[in-house]
Amino acid sequence: MAAPQPLNRFRVVLSRPGIPGNIGAAARALKTMGLSRLYLVSPKHFPHPEAESRASGATDVLAAAVVCESLEEALQGVSMAAAFTARRRELALPMQWAREAATTLTAAAAQGEVALVFGNETYGLSNEELALCQLPVMIPANPEYSSLNLGSAVQLMCYELRMNNIDPGEAPASFGELATVDEVERMMAHFQDAMQDSGFFNPDNPKRLMPRLRRMFSRIRLERDEVNILRGMLASFQHPERFRRSED
Amino acid sequence: MAAPQPLNRFRVVLSRPGIPGNIGAAARALKTMGLSRLYLVSPKHFPHPEAESRASGATDVLAAAVVCESLEEALQGVSMAAAFTARRRELALPMQWAREAATTLTAAAAQGEVALVFGNETYGLSNEELALCQLPVMIPANPEYSSLNLGSAVQLMCYELRMNNIDPGEAPASFGELATVDEVERMMAHFQDAMQDSGFFNPDNPKRLMPRLRRMFSRIRLERDEVNILRGMLASFQHPERFRRSED
Repeated sequence: MAAPQPLNRFRVVLSRPGIPGNIGAAARALKTMGLSRLYLVSPKHFPHPEAESRASGATDVLAAAVVCESLEEALQGVSMAAAFTARRRELALPMQWAREAATTLTAAAAQGEVALVFGNETYGLSNEELALCQLPVMIPANPEYSSLNLGSAVQLMCYELRMNNIDPGEAPASFGELATVDEVERMMAHFQDAMQDSGFFNPDNPKRLMPRLRRMFSRIRLERDEVNILRGMLASFQHPERFRRSED
Repeated sequence: MAAPQPLNRFRVVLSRPGIPGNIGAAARALKTMGLSRLYLVSPKHFPHPEAESRASGATDVLAAAVVCESLEEALQGVSMAAAFTARRRELALPMQWAREAATTLTAAAAQGEVALVFGNETYGLSNEELALCQLPVMIPANPEYSSLNLGSAVQLMCYELRMNNIDPGEAPASFGELATVDEVERMMAHFQDAMQDSGFFNPDNPKRLMPRLRRMFSRIRLERDEVNILRGMLASFQHPERFRRSED
């Protein structure tokens, strides 16, 4: 499992996770975003079939998870640790929102290993655990209900790290070739002719018909095939005799 | 549950979800990001205790979920529907990545209702379902394993919508007041004095000692309290007799 180089500098640490399913969900979240290094501090149940099941296709990440007895142990060799917290606590350090933190942590990863530390589902991180981390991070959530599932929080932060580290490239484009401006212009002229033939368009009283049509087509980026289909349709309206099948 | 106005224009549609826990996870994901409108097309099992359990504090979103028999029904009144897909399909429409799509959908929500459509965990969306949607969306994921959990995918897209619609404000700041530049300068002078007294700093051969110290302190934005602590410490090194307790 060759994760892209920059994402190899990040480890995700779950401290005292209580629900085995969440460990599996976290493993899956890591792998979908190209991370692979999972650390577990005193998991309540591990290994566990529910973790396997929720890991889905990421059982390799689960199998490679490092089990530690303390957060200190899980943070060995780390030069920056981010602590995820759901509430505003009386912290000595300024917090960052997840997106900003992803930028900070990516910069830090250029110089050393970085850890993302998530606390227990019910209790979060203890003050002692927080004190070992250099950057408290919050996910901007609904103030009336800010309790994300542990797996979802891991997913979201790994996504932000991926967005900072891996250029996803252009979104897959449409498969058709776009029509050129002049092809579209010839089509507009064809529309006008055909509507003039049919009597729908009156050149002496054009109203807003052509601008409205033009506005409508300008909202879609027409493909060449589509222009050809539309022009074929117009030709059939103008000369149905050429298109009707001989009666059989 | 008064969701912020702009997020009320979005509904999340799960089409033929097979795993009841994922319905609950989706409800929780919606609520943590301030959305509230969940639609379920032919869920395999609903209601279900596992959905309740995974919804955690979002059972109100679950209870208000609209169950439909078809995707058409779930999309009634919607002016733009985004289809989430994990693979590059032969689509007629150009795709957008999740972040770009959030901007597109937020603009669309200013003019009408918007739906986010997620397919079955195993099969995704059918071609017929895709044809009802105007915007195919992909989450940029690890090409070697791009299968996000359904609840995690919903979480991530609701987060992107929240980021586009709700300003989270400044991240909670440090509680301490920052030291001013002149306070820091007086502290640097104090360091130099103290180190000269102790013999560690030689003004005739200063080397890079002061610039190194200055560089270190410039990387931390010192608070006034911290400057005071450091200067107290320096004073105690210079004049221990003033600080030592009388022997008892």
